Amino acid sequence: MSGKKSIGVAVLGLGNVGSEVVRIINESAADLEARIGAPLELRGVGVRRVSGDRGVPADLLTDDIDALVSRDDVDIVVEVMGPVEPARKAILSALEQGKSVVTANKALMAQSTGELAQAAENARVDLYFEAAVAGAIPVIRPLTQSLAGDSVVRVAGIVNGTTNYILSEMDSTGADYASALADASALGYAEADPTADVEGYDAAAKAAILASIAFHTRVTADDVYREGITKVSAEDFASARALGCTIKLLAICERISTDEGKQRVSARVYPALVPLTHPLAAVNGAFNAVVVEAEAAGRLMFYGQGAGGAPTASAVMGDLVMAARNRVQGGRGPRESKYAKLKIAPIGFIPTRYYVNMNVADRPGVLSAVAAEFSKREVSIAEVRQEGMVDDEGAPCGARIVVVTHQATDAALSETVEALADLDVVQTINSVLRMEGTDV
Amino acid sequence: MSGKKSIGVAVLGLGNVGSEVVRIINESAADLEARIGAPLELRGVGVRRVSGDRGVPADLLTDDIDALVSRDDVDIVVEVMGPVEPARKAILSALEQGKSVVTANKALMAQSTGELAQAAENARVDLYFEAAVAGAIPVIRPLTQSLAGDSVVRVAGIVNGTTNYILSEMDSTGADYASALADASALGYAEADPTADVEGYDAAAKAAILASIAFHTRVTADDVYREGITKVSAEDFASARALGCTIKLLAICERISTDEGKQRVSARVYPALVPLTHPLAAVNGAFNAVVVEAEAAGRLMFYGQGAGGAPTASAVMGDLVMAARNRVQGGRGPRESKYAKLKIAPIGFIPTRYYVNMNVADRPGVLSAVAAEFSKREVSIAEVRQEGMVDDEGAPCGARIVVVTHQATDAALSETVEALADLDVVQTINSVLRMEGTDV
Repeated sequence: MSGKKSIGVAVLGLGNVGSEVVRIINESAADLEARIGAPLELRGVGVRRVSGDRGVPADLLTDDIDALVSRDDVDIVVEVMGPVEPARKAILSALEQGKSVVTANKALMAQSTGELAQAAENARVDLYFEAAVAGAIPVIRPLTQSLAGDSVVRVAGIVNGTTNYILSEMDSTGADYASALADASALGYAEADPTADVEGYDAAAKAAILASIAFHTRVTADDVYREGITKVSAEDFASARALGCTIKLLAICERISTDEGKQRVSARVYPALVPLTHPLAAVNGAFNAVVVEAEAAGRLMFYGQGAGGAPTASAVMGDLVMAARNRVQGGRGPRESKYAKLKIAPIGFIPTRYYVNMNVADRPGVLSAVAAEFSKREVSIAEVRQEGMVDDEGAPCGARIVVVTHQATDAALSETVEALADLDVVQTINSVLRMEGTDV
Repeated sequence: MSGKKSIGVAVLGLGNVGSEVVRIINESAADLEARIGAPLELRGVGVRRVSGDRGVPADLLTDDIDALVSRDDVDIVVEVMGPVEPARKAILSALEQGKSVVTANKALMAQSTGELAQAAENARVDLYFEAAVAGAIPVIRPLTQSLAGDSVVRVAGIVNGTTNYILSEMDSTGADYASALADASALGYAEADPTADVEGYDAAAKAAILASIAFHTRVTADDVYREGITKVSAEDFASARALGCTIKLLAICERISTDEGKQRVSARVYPALVPLTHPLAAVNGAFNAVVVEAEAAGRLMFYGQGAGGAPTASAVMGDLVMAARNRVQGGRGPRESKYAKLKIAPIGFIPTRYYVNMNVADRPGVLSAVAAEFSKREVSIAEVRQEGMVDDEGAPCGARIVVVTHQATDAALSETVEALADLDVVQTINSVLRMEGTDV
């Protein structure tokens, strides 16, 4: 036991991440003390139910989170229990009592940053959340500190491991969505209810956090345009491959200028065709990667494990050591920066490219009719592929057309797709996806 | 002009980086003030000779660096003039006078960290040097902060853009070293005297900085084992390609255990065969990348532009904003952490793999004699390729043997190569390179 005043830590939650955090606090005690300048001491672990062997001395476990957070000898609260509630209440209480907080809770940070940041500001304590985005990969700290003197233009990332596993599987095996999802579930990469992942809610929360930090503007999950991956088909992957692309669920945060020169923020999550030559195309399985483009720095990429107990615990521990150092040495980490107060650009305003896959009648004039709908809205076509189709008996039964456009506003593109759907010669619109990362 | 007390900045050096730093301070003044909480004001720019139009108001230029650094209204000194002297003297003087310092000077930081860190500690000011390693890529901050609660096992990177440009060129065009170097010089990627780059001194300085931070141990450039790229041949690239590899100049920092369980640090720079499937194999041209492996985080990769005026200025500006925030809000960034005091492992102790390319007499028993030298030293062979050679007239003139070993200590491997060179049947040892990134 050191003679120095110790830093008391309460860990809320003892799942995959919490268990790893507790393990590292115990097993790396000497290193952590040397790095912090004082010993880190675990005062208690808050759990929903105190029961059985949880790998933690029984006297450290408690289901009274309020009491644990309020203990005088707790300096820092680590919240790794999710979901939004009761985490929000516990964190707010901790901050109001002058404790620093480290959290991995992306849904909470994407919803309640303002309230929590204000509480941290009032109490002049740290609120860190590196683990909320992309697990072990340092992203928050590089954006808030390393790029603090630069101007970020764009952040684009693969920030959800479950959907990236599913899409990588579909790409490499030709599997359809349902069977790739079943595989992911069997391997523990997808939860029993996969909605938050496959519908893009998890990625949207992370996009909101990234956009807030990158653009010094408060962005919540509700501000993020969102489409999931459930409609991506095996045929889309085949078409993508023919176009030299793969398909990834991207979280994109962008600073764009209106025609009047006003700055706006766009934050959006959707599956998109990505050229195989783009660095994000090679990010497969449960890995995450974030590409940051800044005016002076150019393009940076951060890559690593975006989820899992140990990687997430690594990010939590980094925050915990920093918060503890600040307790020992004085000073605080960066506060919330929201001075820019940029407005959110609606999705219709965003310049993007579309891939449209449709079945059409196979007769003269069809391609011309289809092309006319694009040109009417000043959408320029980059590439068209048409092939005849046959039915189960081998008889011709129309044609399939795949169109890839150049950049146009999302509004013009979606109007074009609506108009195509109304054309007599178009039988079905099979799929509409955006294309990203081509600079065209 | 804001009512808040401004933060005064002196920039030393007005080359590519200094000019960009000055430009950003001027053009982003409003953003920087919002992020810092006070305006940043350029008090002066120190140059060797005040002459001509340097793109800076003449009254800001001075060749009296001592006087500039000592001004009462200078709070932070940005040193981007290189080389070690007079930078060291100016930085030391600044720190002793209680000014925070931001530097991009890798040679200095790899040589004099101890002295400078102590001066910063005495004065309780910040000494930041993110730009000293890998330009715009955040590496120092992730290692000192994001991974502060984890245990780094290994840092391996491509941290020199000049040599990476040359090696990429040799790989993609089949050019030999001399012509690839000439190309790099013509394009401005190599300096008139390329020694610091091609002999690995620049990479060794960065390896020393990375090892110091990753392993909480003071490591200087002299502690780094170093080999340059001048002997890498076009034939080595052809052989590497046949083995599914390319060749990269790597800076490797590793924590290893002795047989007695003691922890040691290895820091080394050399050209090595890297499998094409390894993430560093795809880092081409003037780009840099650093792979960090930590116990909890697993493998992380950081990628971006490792040199150039704007990218380096991005890193400098991040440090400058952080140092300025600390002046406004109180507090300091992380201090030097050297508590672990690990000893340096000599190169002979390091487990590695060798690629050996030699010309031998083409007669029975030669391969057996060659293989015997490996087995005598318990070096296991992973792969052997032998092919007959013909002279200018097409007549047989011996054979070429390429051997790739499994892991053994560098000492055993280098002894084996010495013994091979002494064998009568071995005509010449054409090339010896290490192989990294294969986990075998």
